[in-house]
Amino acid sequence: MDFSSFVTSLATSFVIFVVLMLLFVWLSRMPGNKVVYYPSRIIKGMDAWDGKRTRNPFAWIGEALKAKEEDVVAMAGVDTAVYLVFLSSALGILVLSGFLLLPLLLPLAATDKNVKLAKAEKNSNGTFSELDNLAMGNIRKQSPRLWGFLAAAYWVSFVTYYILWKAYKHVSQLRAAALSAPDPKPEQFTVLVRDIPPPSNGQTRKEQVDSYFRSLHPDTFYRSLIITDNKEVNKIWEELENYKKKLARAEVIYEGSKTSSNPEGTRPMNRTGFLGLIGKKVDTIDDCNNKIKELIPKLDAEQKKTVSEKQSSAALVFFNRKQAAISAGQTLHARLVDTWKVTEAPEPRQLLWLNLPITLYQRKIRSIVIYFFVFLMVVFYMIPIGFISAVTTLANLRKLLPFLKAIVDTPAIKTVLEAYLPQIALIVFLALLPAFLMFLSNKEGIPSQSHVVRATSGKYFYFIVFNVFIGVTIGGTLFSSLKTVEKDPNQIIPMLGRNLPPNAIFFLTFVALKFFVGFGLELSRVVPLVIYHIKRKYLCKTDDELRAAWAPGDLGFGTRVPNDVLILTVVLCYSVIAPLIIPFGVAYFGLGWLILRNQALKVYIPSYESYGRMWPHMHLRILAALFLFQLTMIGYFSVKEFYYTPVLVFLPIISLVFAYVCSNCFYRSFDVTPLEVVAQSVKEVPNMEPIFAAYVPPCLSYDKFDDADQYEDARSQMPSRAGSFA
Amino acid sequence: MDFSSFVTSLATSFVIFVVLMLLFVWLSRMPGNKVVYYPSRIIKGMDAWDGKRTRNPFAWIGEALKAKEEDVVAMAGVDTAVYLVFLSSALGILVLSGFLLLPLLLPLAATDKNVKLAKAEKNSNGTFSELDNLAMGNIRKQSPRLWGFLAAAYWVSFVTYYILWKAYKHVSQLRAAALSAPDPKPEQFTVLVRDIPPPSNGQTRKEQVDSYFRSLHPDTFYRSLIITDNKEVNKIWEELENYKKKLARAEVIYEGSKTSSNPEGTRPMNRTGFLGLIGKKVDTIDDCNNKIKELIPKLDAEQKKTVSEKQSSAALVFFNRKQAAISAGQTLHARLVDTWKVTEAPEPRQLLWLNLPITLYQRKIRSIVIYFFVFLMVVFYMIPIGFISAVTTLANLRKLLPFLKAIVDTPAIKTVLEAYLPQIALIVFLALLPAFLMFLSNKEGIPSQSHVVRATSGKYFYFIVFNVFIGVTIGGTLFSSLKTVEKDPNQIIPMLGRNLPPNAIFFLTFVALKFFVGFGLELSRVVPLVIYHIKRKYLCKTDDELRAAWAPGDLGFGTRVPNDVLILTVVLCYSVIAPLIIPFGVAYFGLGWLILRNQALKVYIPSYESYGRMWPHMHLRILAALFLFQLTMIGYFSVKEFYYTPVLVFLPIISLVFAYVCSNCFYRSFDVTPLEVVAQSVKEVPNMEPIFAAYVPPCLSYDKFDDADQYEDARSQMPSRAGSFA
Repeated sequence: MDFSSFVTSLATSFVIFVVLMLLFVWLSRMPGNKVVYYPSRIIKGMDAWDGKRTRNPFAWIGEALKAKEEDVVAMAGVDTAVYLVFLSSALGILVLSGFLLLPLLLPLAATDKNVKLAKAEKNSNGTFSELDNLAMGNIRKQSPRLWGFLAAAYWVSFVTYYILWKAYKHVSQLRAAALSAPDPKPEQFTVLVRDIPPPSNGQTRKEQVDSYFRSLHPDTFYRSLIITDNKEVNKIWEELENYKKKLARAEVIYEGSKTSSNPEGTRPMNRTGFLGLIGKKVDTIDDCNNKIKELIPKLDAEQKKTVSEKQSSAALVFFNRKQAAISAGQTLHARLVDTWKVTEAPEPRQLLWLNLPITLYQRKIRSIVIYFFVFLMVVFYMIPIGFISAVTTLANLRKLLPFLKAIVDTPAIKTVLEAYLPQIALIVFLALLPAFLMFLSNKEGIPSQSHVVRATSGKYFYFIVFNVFIGVTIGGTLFSSLKTVEKDPNQIIPMLGRNLPPNAIFFLTFVALKFFVGFGLELSRVVPLVIYHIKRKYLCKTDDELRAAWAPGDLGFGTRVPNDVLILTVVLCYSVIAPLIIPFGVAYFGLGWLILRNQALKVYIPSYESYGRMWPHMHLRILAALFLFQLTMIGYFSVKEFYYTPVLVFLPIISLVFAYVCSNCFYRSFDVTPLEVVAQSVKEVPNMEPIFAAYVPPCLSYDKFDDADQYEDARSQMPSRAGSFA
Repeated sequence: MDFSSFVTSLATSFVIFVVLMLLFVWLSRMPGNKVVYYPSRIIKGMDAWDGKRTRNPFAWIGEALKAKEEDVVAMAGVDTAVYLVFLSSALGILVLSGFLLLPLLLPLAATDKNVKLAKAEKNSNGTFSELDNLAMGNIRKQSPRLWGFLAAAYWVSFVTYYILWKAYKHVSQLRAAALSAPDPKPEQFTVLVRDIPPPSNGQTRKEQVDSYFRSLHPDTFYRSLIITDNKEVNKIWEELENYKKKLARAEVIYEGSKTSSNPEGTRPMNRTGFLGLIGKKVDTIDDCNNKIKELIPKLDAEQKKTVSEKQSSAALVFFNRKQAAISAGQTLHARLVDTWKVTEAPEPRQLLWLNLPITLYQRKIRSIVIYFFVFLMVVFYMIPIGFISAVTTLANLRKLLPFLKAIVDTPAIKTVLEAYLPQIALIVFLALLPAFLMFLSNKEGIPSQSHVVRATSGKYFYFIVFNVFIGVTIGGTLFSSLKTVEKDPNQIIPMLGRNLPPNAIFFLTFVALKFFVGFGLELSRVVPLVIYHIKRKYLCKTDDELRAAWAPGDLGFGTRVPNDVLILTVVLCYSVIAPLIIPFGVAYFGLGWLILRNQALKVYIPSYESYGRMWPHMHLRILAALFLFQLTMIGYFSVKEFYYTPVLVFLPIISLVFAYVCSNCFYRSFDVTPLEVVAQSVKEVPNMEPIFAAYVPPCLSYDKFDDADQYEDARSQMPSRAGSFA
């Protein structure tokens, strides 16, 4: 890519960004779009525009800048605030790095003449662009100017350590403040118990769990909730909910049909068969009412049966004091470590009920299998992609699916298909990947949604760093390179060093595209807007349906974080080689921070709250990016035949030590809740009933558990049952 | 070594063993030696011989066999019982292995003729002995008979897994039973708190700790004991104790001098200067009385000062319920993980008071430095040894220490010195090694004696396996071999495989020597007996001194366990290559088990009780031995050019998986106390005073803490102090 096409690409991206910004300013001022641009405020019962009708088009920038961290926590939770800390940390690292690197390295590079020399030698100018004069490539081999670049590598590293240390401290405080808030959080009174051994003869699970915890925590045990197998009851409940929705919709349609010309209206009808397309025609309202009447007693019976008969080997145990629950969650209960595994309970809304009864060994085996599979996918994903590309050539398609011949042979279609078929296959694969990784992570048997998101994010990070960054860098020669690496593993670092510089401009464009187009789309919400308006016009009938149409969803950390870390990795790795990338990185994280702050305050609603447990994960990924940068530096300096390259070897070692120290200092307080933190808030026993009810899934009703408990109590008062736990 | 010298060596060892056994039978029957052969029974107030005067000389064998495990636990504690389980597990592994290996492999080897062929080829018989006909060396290359040896390797591995799994389960039960005993154990009511942050202004450590724990554990906190800097007070206390002993001794001497001829007696005198050799002569009794009178108020003042002013950043915190202390010991207290580090308290008698105030970072750094140093020592210990040998040649000694010339030039002395000087240097080094390793482990900042012993045992294990086993095997070519390994790390396994077989007979002799002479000395206790009698005759005057002279000491797991594991490593590694070693191994562990059981029941008194925490350590070392065996097998099979050698690759993988599963299943219940276990015993609050007093070191008196506490209480009732913890 030469200089002019670089400028063209940059300009195009910028124009798209400006258009999207103007669209945002225009669209967000229309009252009908309020629900798309301010859903979070509307759901919280606040006025979208703070009462002001005529707003400065750029007021949102001021609002985003002025908002305090507490406001973000209040509007979008700790997790979102932590994500913004992550963005601002990345921004801080790049800004501080740029302060030294731009004034130091650009003049050093610009006044040398390696590129010119190389040009003269090769008598060509095909592979060198004007930008290369400002990069490390313009420094001659063994030049003493390389000391400046070496110092820059140290500066970037220490800036990163400093910012990360401060950020970890800050996030740790954020988390502690949120955890110590006095409002009773159900998860602080609850522990999750898994791998309960089979009950002794005659005991139900409920009796077994109650007697076990009552004997170990006689003063603080409140009650237990056995995890049940809800497949059946959930099916019935969903069917019922479906009919209820259908009924509401039918009633609205019926009301709507009562025009003046037809005061009776037309009762909506539907067919009972497949997708409402075949079968008998029935009156929808009557049909739904009948079905609901049928289903309610069925649900009731199934609920009773589930609660009493389908108890599994996991349970939630409630305590009437926070300290007791927090301590119990960290204490080894049973002598055999693979039984009675007690951990802190996740939030009710992120509890993955179906994963809870999976046993320890199955969880371990699943993890191993899934990680092995992901490893294969990360390393060899080019093989199935290549295979798909090969199969999806037109010639093959014609052979395999002969009925397509007529379409495929049209010349116009043929040209388009030939050009784009392999790319389309790749795009479809990449689009499905996050969902697939989320599915895999869920199958590991993880008990909470936030943990699944962290696991997904980790897997996705490996995938994109390996494939986008290393893949693009080493490029088409990946497989032949792998062979070299196999022969001599020490070759990987010099290889990275050699292959990075020629791709600098590609990545400059990549980062610019990401922030201009990506954040432009993010802020302008063009896609959700269009979807909302289509749904509103053609599909939604009831208020509930309308609300579902503009529900903003959450930030989707599973893919968002790895993508940001990828940008950071790219910018860090090029920061010393081609310092011009730093302003682009600053623009990415600066814009990102600003726009995401706006979105956090006004748009997204997090679907769970993990009190910043994502932070250690982000911290480690940033460090991994730094580590990769340091290895790259060692590689590139040795390509430059710099005599003092070994001085750089300390950097990766310092990074490892820093990671170890941070994890020793902070990690455990993210893994579990420190006792000190919960003990700061009120100490009275709160009303425990809502805490228990919060964990009852919607398909089971609270009173069923109450009934069962009373039944148990009556039984356990019989003399033969008393003291059944030895 | 040829066959006849092997038999000679074996016979010599056996004769020594028989002599030692006869000595034991004879000496242990003499009433004056009771205190050497039955000290444990005497200290526990039991009759040494169970009242029977005329005993069968081999009654001890029956008694050792008949004794139940509970008897061992009652007499010598859980740790000793666990050590016996370790011996019987090793025995079980070898017996079960032998059942298959001896009848299967010996005929396979005996009927082949590789050795004969090699002999014929080389036309010499120097390097082959008759025993080699019974070893794997006699199997020809690529022979299908190797399948038998391959099956044997699998059999040995699976026998080991089976026995280890059963043993882990058994030890876990032993530990749980001991921990759940209803007698109040001080350590079950106590937690150790380290890394307490600096107190806020005006607060003392004591106030800080009390308010912190009172607010986090309002119902169960009893009181705290701040670790103080006892150097000064301990010095005074030791001086005082010394004078008390001296006084008692002087009084006995004085009484003894009152004979009929001299009814007044002579008052013992001593000089006050260096070692009692120079200085003024004084009356010992008067002098001691004066010194004691002087020291008592000095001690009192120093005790007060220590308790109130020399408080450090560590403390013991006492709870009035077991469950509360056990839970607290496993719960993260502070948000910053490097402050308020709460762990279960070690037993009072094994608490290493001086290590407690060492901060987290210092502990980590010390560990790293010490492990790095030990690593260097293990790998390069031959360098200083070689250096010492070089320096201690006679020529050098004469040059360095010219005044020795006269002695050294005597021809007789010269010959002896020349022959033994390097060996003596090596022996001195090896004899000092365990104490040195113990010193290093202590310096890591470990809080309990049992943990120091485990750390020492680990270091010593690496040392002897690397140096004795691998050192002897690869022999003098170690350094040139290391160079080969550096060039191609994959060479280490084939190298082991090539070098093991020629050393089989050396190790056969080694094992035989160890059990005949080692256990003979152990049972006959010749060394302690001689020392005791010398002390009794010439040194001891008072009863206390006499009691100290026969005090039996404990088993010294720090060196005993690694030595046993070394034998097991040797026997396992040769079990398939030269199955004849198995009976020797069986004899070692069989005799060891029997004799150590006798010693446990009658001699040794453990100096601490860690409830079997040594077991995971032993388990892992046995597995390491098995792992080394499996690698050796892979190496030797590839030397034999066996086509199916890769079948063996599964074995080390299975071993790793087995280690992982075991540690997941059992380890945490050894690392911490499971709540279930302590909750089984009585639940009333016991008398807490003796529990607190158990932790007060002898140089400080209990009432000083009580006084200080009352003073604190009075202060803390002042309004300005109340609620100082936010």
